[in-house]
Amino acid sequence: MSQDNYNELVKLSKEISTLSSIHALLDWDQETYMPEKGIALRSSQKQLLSSLIHEKKKSHEFKKQLSKLIDLKTGQIIDPNLEDLQKRSLLRILHDFNIAKKQSDELVKNLSEATSTACHVWSKTKKTSDFQTFAPYLKRVFDKTKEQAEALGYQDHPYDALLDLYEPGMTVEVLDPLFKELKKALIPLIQKQPPKPDTSFFYGNFDKEVQRKFCIEILETLGFDFTRGRLDRTSHPFCMGLSSNDLRLTIHGESGNLIGNIMATLHEGGHALYEQGLLEENFGTPLGMAASLGIHESQSRFYETRIGLSKPFWTHTYPLLQKTYPHNLEKVSFDTFYKALTASSPSLIRVHSDELTYSLHIILRYEIEKAYLEGEIAIKDLPNIFAEKMQESLGISPNTHAEGVMQDIHWSMGLIGYFPTYTLGNIYSAQIFNQFKLNHPDWEKRVENGHLHFIRDYLNEKIHKYGRAFLPQELIENLTKEKLNAKPYIDYLKEKFT
Amino acid sequence: MSQDNYNELVKLSKEISTLSSIHALLDWDQETYMPEKGIALRSSQKQLLSSLIHEKKKSHEFKKQLSKLIDLKTGQIIDPNLEDLQKRSLLRILHDFNIAKKQSDELVKNLSEATSTACHVWSKTKKTSDFQTFAPYLKRVFDKTKEQAEALGYQDHPYDALLDLYEPGMTVEVLDPLFKELKKALIPLIQKQPPKPDTSFFYGNFDKEVQRKFCIEILETLGFDFTRGRLDRTSHPFCMGLSSNDLRLTIHGESGNLIGNIMATLHEGGHALYEQGLLEENFGTPLGMAASLGIHESQSRFYETRIGLSKPFWTHTYPLLQKTYPHNLEKVSFDTFYKALTASSPSLIRVHSDELTYSLHIILRYEIEKAYLEGEIAIKDLPNIFAEKMQESLGISPNTHAEGVMQDIHWSMGLIGYFPTYTLGNIYSAQIFNQFKLNHPDWEKRVENGHLHFIRDYLNEKIHKYGRAFLPQELIENLTKEKLNAKPYIDYLKEKFT
Repeated sequence: MSQDNYNELVKLSKEISTLSSIHALLDWDQETYMPEKGIALRSSQKQLLSSLIHEKKKSHEFKKQLSKLIDLKTGQIIDPNLEDLQKRSLLRILHDFNIAKKQSDELVKNLSEATSTACHVWSKTKKTSDFQTFAPYLKRVFDKTKEQAEALGYQDHPYDALLDLYEPGMTVEVLDPLFKELKKALIPLIQKQPPKPDTSFFYGNFDKEVQRKFCIEILETLGFDFTRGRLDRTSHPFCMGLSSNDLRLTIHGESGNLIGNIMATLHEGGHALYEQGLLEENFGTPLGMAASLGIHESQSRFYETRIGLSKPFWTHTYPLLQKTYPHNLEKVSFDTFYKALTASSPSLIRVHSDELTYSLHIILRYEIEKAYLEGEIAIKDLPNIFAEKMQESLGISPNTHAEGVMQDIHWSMGLIGYFPTYTLGNIYSAQIFNQFKLNHPDWEKRVENGHLHFIRDYLNEKIHKYGRAFLPQELIENLTKEKLNAKPYIDYLKEKFT
Repeated sequence: MSQDNYNELVKLSKEISTLSSIHALLDWDQETYMPEKGIALRSSQKQLLSSLIHEKKKSHEFKKQLSKLIDLKTGQIIDPNLEDLQKRSLLRILHDFNIAKKQSDELVKNLSEATSTACHVWSKTKKTSDFQTFAPYLKRVFDKTKEQAEALGYQDHPYDALLDLYEPGMTVEVLDPLFKELKKALIPLIQKQPPKPDTSFFYGNFDKEVQRKFCIEILETLGFDFTRGRLDRTSHPFCMGLSSNDLRLTIHGESGNLIGNIMATLHEGGHALYEQGLLEENFGTPLGMAASLGIHESQSRFYETRIGLSKPFWTHTYPLLQKTYPHNLEKVSFDTFYKALTASSPSLIRVHSDELTYSLHIILRYEIEKAYLEGEIAIKDLPNIFAEKMQESLGISPNTHAEGVMQDIHWSMGLIGYFPTYTLGNIYSAQIFNQFKLNHPDWEKRVENGHLHFIRDYLNEKIHKYGRAFLPQELIENLTKEKLNAKPYIDYLKEKFT
């Protein structure tokens, strides 16, 4: 009986996921193949679908079905005979239901209007670094997001309500000391880095299809299943999952850098392997979804930095790369190449920054977001605050707003509370990697020989198959027997960059 | 007030069209880029979307809004002050509403199950020409379609109810004499054709991208707007319209015939120009939709046969084709080429048949469908009846069921009453072409010089811009001042093939 009720709920939940997967296809098509003038219809399609999804998420039918299984107020599971994973799944469903329910239709509409206008204005004003014109639109997004935080509710800090949207269970109380520790360790390390070596051999005019084929081979080496996904070219690389059986990856359409698309492939490939590792039978339930954005990022960074910037990986890959681009690399020794690949130097733009400096870009954004929610700063002061914080942590200052406070689209999109998941991904990744090394002490030899599928299998088994059954911090603790902490990440960076 | 009511109805109607346009994208993606194992999710996505569309079409809200504007029983427009086109639009909306309303959820579900199973069984049993295994599934589809005809209702013949789904207003009473006349004229003409000339120079291994580029140039010559559409490669050519601003055309991915994809481009291009010619502001209402499948086919056949098989078109195009495929065509004279292109000879397979023989393939299917609905024939006898009719009209007989009664997927899809629209398209096309020649007596000279945009503009003005405001037969009569009749089509074929 209770099992029937659970199955009935899953049916409703699957409908929501199915509609969301259609939304993902609309996004993918918009970035890849949609003709230019298809954009107006595409916006209506996405708007209509989003409202249908929102309706279903908070529908009376859904609520009624959910309340047969779990007490909506206390979160108490009603039938103790359900399986443990089903109980966990119910808790996550209730969590999502509450998030949908607490946001009024008006708030959702206002937020959507504010963000879509801000994105539009951002893309125009960024071109001329015109922060003044952009500011009121940005203010509206921040203020609506603040309203959202209030609507969602929190115990200690309004920022916790937003964090929870992207990284369930994460709080300012956990993040503050973690980020403080990181800053303290990284700033002096960055200051001690030698000047960047010559990297001119990375650049040139490369055939797009040759690049794509090389990236496809890398994905095959990682163990990506091409019967369940594909790789296209867009203006910015991404990984979009319709389901574990349909993953859409992209790399840069135009890349004058022979390394850029390879690193993008490793990064997006890490995301994609996570999605492919979710169990098909769990589609539509929290058990078939990724644990959080931070855990997702831990997988992409695992492949991008811990594998993709490792010596063993390039011992295997460099000869292939040389063969593909003899004009650029024939005369470049492995050591010269590897040094250029892994050197660190502060950059103004977050997305171009390296392993060592990346977290400081995130932390300064976190500090600004949090201070705004606390009412400590005003939007008009953001450019100066941004520049000061950058000077303080990276020792450089933006010359224009476009390469400073206006560089990211995230805030215009209303993604406040989102940036921390990038750094959390790196921290998780380091903890996971230490455990991985313990379980696979011979990993370097295997990777040197081009055998990488065992890594995918390891992550499938230890992370992917659980979906959202555990909160991110539980997942890490279950695997590593350690609490979330930045030490493995700091140790790794210290060793690499000293 | 009444105008407000109309706008409110249009809003609801647009939602239905927007969902349908998403369904079209799901179809397009399935044929072009979807990874192999994405199919199970794709089926659920399409099923869910179809049921949402069906719900909206017969929703209480829609009915209530419609009933404010038109009497649902008598079809009387309530407010005489609405514009004439709005009144026509309302009549079409009521027509569609009645079609949705008359079909019970159970019937729709049964029909959908019967057809999806039949398609699956068809694609397996066709390979071994196993009609006996296929027959019960085909029978179920025919019987469910018969039920559908009864549910929809009709005055004279159950077949009229099905015809009306694809060709509004068309009846057996109109078709019977039209098809009889065609048979009478064409059968003796076909018997008199000389043997087919050598066409070996059409065949070879051609680079796929070279083919696609040539087809893109042809579409540009026709006046297709590539900011509102694109051309990809699939296993079968098609044209799919998300809206007049987003058309997705395809040609064969693998074609060993250098003419095949060009003819496909002209055909699908004709469909696409129709869709691009619908007025953007009418999206979501009958005024922004094609008049019927037959009128749609008249546009594709106009470009494929009346332009694309004309001497002036090839006078312009042949030198370009020779330059593209010198290996095949360098030594082939224009006359030899044109003779090979336009020669007629009966073929077993409908989709490979030429201008002269095509209608007879359609008529035999029409006769079978109608006889089944009349209870005159049994499914088990279809192979023999099919073969006999083919022998009678084309003078050839299939050796296997796969090249006979099992060749088309249409019946498995439940598309009974659909085939006649192909031949109607040719008949309409000939009537439209005669009018076009009267208005543009210099058309041959202009086409010879590669100027074809005036044809698109003509069809935009005379056909496309009206959408579904007129019934197909009204549209033809308004333009040509003649009733629907087969004489122009027969005259054209007689002149060309005598």
